[in-house]
Amino acid sequence: MLELGRTIGIVGGGQLGRMLALAAAPLGYKIHIFDPAPNSPAAQVATMETNAAFDDEAALVAFAKSVDVVTYEFENIPDHALTSMAEIVEIYPPIDALRVSQDRFIEKQFLEALGLNTAPYADLTSREVLDDALAVSSNGGIVKTRRFGYDGKGQIRVRQGDDLSETYALLESTPSIFEGFVAFSTEISVIAARGQDGKIVAYDPGENNHQNGILHQTHLPANLPAARLQDAVLAAGRILNALHYVGVMGVEFFVTSDGLIVNEIAPRVHNSGHWTQDGCLVDQFEQHIRAVAGLPLGDGTRHFDVEMTNLIGDDVFLAQAALDDANCRIHLYGKSEARPGRKMGHINRILR
Amino acid sequence: MLELGRTIGIVGGGQLGRMLALAAAPLGYKIHIFDPAPNSPAAQVATMETNAAFDDEAALVAFAKSVDVVTYEFENIPDHALTSMAEIVEIYPPIDALRVSQDRFIEKQFLEALGLNTAPYADLTSREVLDDALAVSSNGGIVKTRRFGYDGKGQIRVRQGDDLSETYALLESTPSIFEGFVAFSTEISVIAARGQDGKIVAYDPGENNHQNGILHQTHLPANLPAARLQDAVLAAGRILNALHYVGVMGVEFFVTSDGLIVNEIAPRVHNSGHWTQDGCLVDQFEQHIRAVAGLPLGDGTRHFDVEMTNLIGDDVFLAQAALDDANCRIHLYGKSEARPGRKMGHINRILR
Repeated sequence: MLELGRTIGIVGGGQLGRMLALAAAPLGYKIHIFDPAPNSPAAQVATMETNAAFDDEAALVAFAKSVDVVTYEFENIPDHALTSMAEIVEIYPPIDALRVSQDRFIEKQFLEALGLNTAPYADLTSREVLDDALAVSSNGGIVKTRRFGYDGKGQIRVRQGDDLSETYALLESTPSIFEGFVAFSTEISVIAARGQDGKIVAYDPGENNHQNGILHQTHLPANLPAARLQDAVLAAGRILNALHYVGVMGVEFFVTSDGLIVNEIAPRVHNSGHWTQDGCLVDQFEQHIRAVAGLPLGDGTRHFDVEMTNLIGDDVFLAQAALDDANCRIHLYGKSEARPGRKMGHINRILR
Repeated sequence: MLELGRTIGIVGGGQLGRMLALAAAPLGYKIHIFDPAPNSPAAQVATMETNAAFDDEAALVAFAKSVDVVTYEFENIPDHALTSMAEIVEIYPPIDALRVSQDRFIEKQFLEALGLNTAPYADLTSREVLDDALAVSSNGGIVKTRRFGYDGKGQIRVRQGDDLSETYALLESTPSIFEGFVAFSTEISVIAARGQDGKIVAYDPGENNHQNGILHQTHLPANLPAARLQDAVLAAGRILNALHYVGVMGVEFFVTSDGLIVNEIAPRVHNSGHWTQDGCLVDQFEQHIRAVAGLPLGDGTRHFDVEMTNLIGDDVFLAQAALDDANCRIHLYGKSEARPGRKMGHINRILR
């Protein structure tokens, strides 16, 4: 158990790091942020910051030496840097879990081996693999880079008969996979935590709506039968246990007429879990800090129905109206410039 | 209204400043802490800090110039420094309110003028005033310095027939008042906020228990008739309006068989309001920041019964057990040394 007053290092200074830092303070921990940019959203509320590139191994090692445990909100840390850091200090979630989630192909294989359903997929080692996959996928699918993609970046929608020249160029320059489209009625996600003692706490699954490939809203409760939600929680638990996971994970599921399909796993606190800040006694951020610090996990019982809405780009100006609404709390990220597509904050509206 | 991304200056870097800073972040504001000591509880979670003495007028003026609005958690700022700062930037709560609360004699006169009851009191301009006061106070009372006292510091218990030499020395060296003891059944406090638009929001009154002159517990609901609690809320509202107050105030009342007696007012967030962090959607810290920033006040409806327990000195080690309790949240202040009598944190236990 990490003693009071010790320092938790967080790789990545975005909004997830910011909300982790805000949650760590009441537990008595100091936060050291590692981010290339000075005055990042997280560094604004942290005790210390280091500014260096995410692939600056010397800086990462110095950072690891300066803290008592490391966690991350940025998943694309180079593997050799992770290995070097892990020789110095504990890293949670464990780097084996990070490696699985860093590569969409390995992730799909891992999920399949656990007996969980995924979208049909193929490792695009050649043009022919893509051609074959499209031949059997009547609805087409998406070509995604195996690594370094999020919020729809590095993705191309494809179907048989399309001009595939751009897609061929992508798969020949960057390891990529094909994912067949899945006919699903809705998407849900489970935010679950596993402690160093192996205990698992899961929040109620939320139901997600996307706009332009970015999460727009998560609402609780999900409009699904309890048995289906229970399936999702159990699948998440199986994933966490298999990875000997420590920390909070977000697991996204497509809901189909044949059951649940795991869309992806994120080895960190997750946008679709932001509702927990105002819906539960212990939110996903404190839960993650508790796990990383070796504390017992807290209570994640949901008190209210909640609708979380992301504020993307100019949406940030909607925060003003939410301040007048007795059922809303706003959570802004301290970003100075409201660029299109940029996550600026979110609003939790509780229903009581 | 203070725009997003602007900076709020807080004079004082203790736990109240820390929790104000943590509450300001989700509203999108940056925090600059003014405190003599580096790495204070508040500075650990703030974007900027200035380290200088509270009577360093030049440093306070430079601080005032660097921020967009000033508030304080430390009330004993010298009057000339306040005046200089007020010429540069808005200060909330207003400094006239601060002046009233800085001097126990002026505070009592103010409350009396509002038609509120106080303990019998006398301005100890001479030994004779004390002798006369004791002659009519069968239970004795307390001699307190007019200024610069908190948590029982600068206070002497006296009754007729005592050896008063130490007390005479105090009142002749430092302006002091006598407060007669009041026979009361319990103490309650009202945490109320007034916005820049004059709107007032009050939290449910909490009932307080003290140990060794320091607040030990506050529990909600208070075990009193609703009409009595309503009296307290209305009295607090009268005080806030009379002071053209902006921000959160704590008002302590003694409950007697003859009604309520105002014990003292604190022009800031208050220890007996810490329960709001886990009992309400918008807590006293966010409420104060909203008021100071000119935002609309938030909803202070109480969701749960709550018992707040202060962790004084070595009590901080009780936090460990609270982490295992599904109904508890802990709030630690980032202080490295658990000295006797020092407020190290608090626990909110909710009853649901």
